[in-house]
Amino acid sequence: MTPTTAPTPRQTALLAQLLATGLLIDSGVPGVYGRGAAFEEIRLAVDRLIDSVAAGDDAEALRFPPVLPRRHLETSGYLASFPHLAGTIFAFEGDEQDAAAQARDADAHARWDRHQQMTDVVLTPAACYPVYPAIAARGPLPPHGVCIDAGGAYVFRCEPSQDPARMQMFHQREIVRLGEPETVAAWRNVWRERCMTLLDDLGLEPATDVASDPFFGRQGRMLATSQRQQALKFEVSVAIAGDEPTAVASFNYHRDHFAERFGILAQTGGAVHTACLGFGLERITLGLLAAHGLDRGAWPPGVRLRLGLS
Amino acid sequence: MTPTTAPTPRQTALLAQLLATGLLIDSGVPGVYGRGAAFEEIRLAVDRLIDSVAAGDDAEALRFPPVLPRRHLETSGYLASFPHLAGTIFAFEGDEQDAAAQARDADAHARWDRHQQMTDVVLTPAACYPVYPAIAARGPLPPHGVCIDAGGAYVFRCEPSQDPARMQMFHQREIVRLGEPETVAAWRNVWRERCMTLLDDLGLEPATDVASDPFFGRQGRMLATSQRQQALKFEVSVAIAGDEPTAVASFNYHRDHFAERFGILAQTGGAVHTACLGFGLERITLGLLAAHGLDRGAWPPGVRLRLGLS
Repeated sequence: MTPTTAPTPRQTALLAQLLATGLLIDSGVPGVYGRGAAFEEIRLAVDRLIDSVAAGDDAEALRFPPVLPRRHLETSGYLASFPHLAGTIFAFEGDEQDAAAQARDADAHARWDRHQQMTDVVLTPAACYPVYPAIAARGPLPPHGVCIDAGGAYVFRCEPSQDPARMQMFHQREIVRLGEPETVAAWRNVWRERCMTLLDDLGLEPATDVASDPFFGRQGRMLATSQRQQALKFEVSVAIAGDEPTAVASFNYHRDHFAERFGILAQTGGAVHTACLGFGLERITLGLLAAHGLDRGAWPPGVRLRLGLS
Repeated sequence: MTPTTAPTPRQTALLAQLLATGLLIDSGVPGVYGRGAAFEEIRLAVDRLIDSVAAGDDAEALRFPPVLPRRHLETSGYLASFPHLAGTIFAFEGDEQDAAAQARDADAHARWDRHQQMTDVVLTPAACYPVYPAIAARGPLPPHGVCIDAGGAYVFRCEPSQDPARMQMFHQREIVRLGEPETVAAWRNVWRERCMTLLDDLGLEPATDVASDPFFGRQGRMLATSQRQQALKFEVSVAIAGDEPTAVASFNYHRDHFAERFGILAQTGGAVHTACLGFGLERITLGLLAAHGLDRGAWPPGVRLRLGLS
């Protein structure tokens, strides 16, 4: 697959520096990187800082692997909006003769897709997706709803890019709120403020604005306009290496979409709405590196202190 | 895909208990589970304990995502040995009309595989695989070789099963040693002893033995016999819920296989061998739950102390 948009000169320069210093490790596929210890230490420090801010929510911690049942992706409606971003998992089901042919093709770096069949699992496209069926399976929501901390999970987006901030596989630090419409809307607003403070404390000069998802195609542009008009999505952005600031956190209000799709009901019989917030841990890490330099030892002491980094 | 082998009654009972207590969360697909906070706390405590034991290696920490460039899988030779376990990633490349047809099929839970094409990435089958090309790219190995701690990464095995210890997606805590044959062989032997002590301290009564990988087909049985004869693989097993103990750690000596395939050379010009060790973090967690009970509060104080768990 070919990269979708050309990187800016500053994005190209930043990626080259990240690879030269071993902060990231090239894999040969755009947007798929290994991470050096120095990068991971910052990423995990950001994760812990979000932990400490999230402690007030008293959320239940659940963790999910980076694959999702295909049926849940189908039920979610994701493919109607983001067909171009989804990754599905295929596997081999043949006999020894097929296996030998597949191995020969693979060994020659020739095509071997004809040997592969679709499985029951797909890559998780957003860390909140496994939460809805898991909560639906528990039965009706208790009176004040629930708050789930889904941790910092790897998610996949099929969008090869030379922009280091647009990875195909990255950690989304996700919290999901399910409950009455007012509760959910209020929670999202509280978190937007918390997020601004958190990033401001890190010297990242965050800005927040109404945003839209990268819906597919012409019809998608209408969906994006509608989403903006209803202010269903907010993003918080910081400078990384693009011409514009890059979104590092997003707040999504789904109204009754997921509750309806997955059959999440309230004990009270009232409407169930959901919202989620996702922090892009790699993007915040890149924001810190872009703002304060690639050498963590030279960062402002206040930023290191806030992150608990020596 | 249908499960390969029938679970034992004790495996079925353990899975039912794990789901009933919320330690694991059913996804509807065998071997793909969410994890409750209680399960994750134990798994992460095991990970930290391995950290402390590994500190003596002075290994370099690198981290890799759960996807691998397809080209690296092809180069590794994995498909000749384990075609049945590999997962490949497909994605959509069509236009708006194709997208609408795909979304309709998916919404009806009908087949939509015809809309998907093979991408440049596959699921990581073992946590050591991304290490070899990353080290090869650095140029010849320094005199004493290198030791890489690849962390506790998610890996995929396409083997749906109702045995809770046979997950499709699980954390492999991986350390890789690359260097001269004697250095690598000695390192593997030291770790086998460390591993026995570590698991014994946790009250798991570990046993170690020569083992073989689950090679595919009739030809695979010959490969397995040869691997055993040369004692290239050792496993450490503990009781979980099978009729036999379950492997929770494995030590693999690859001789020059990966060095050859990925072009890893030594500055000295001598032979480069590699070995890896992988701890199955979920399996050790299950071993602890099976040995000491599902209620961590009732575990032997010495075990909790060793794990730093209250």
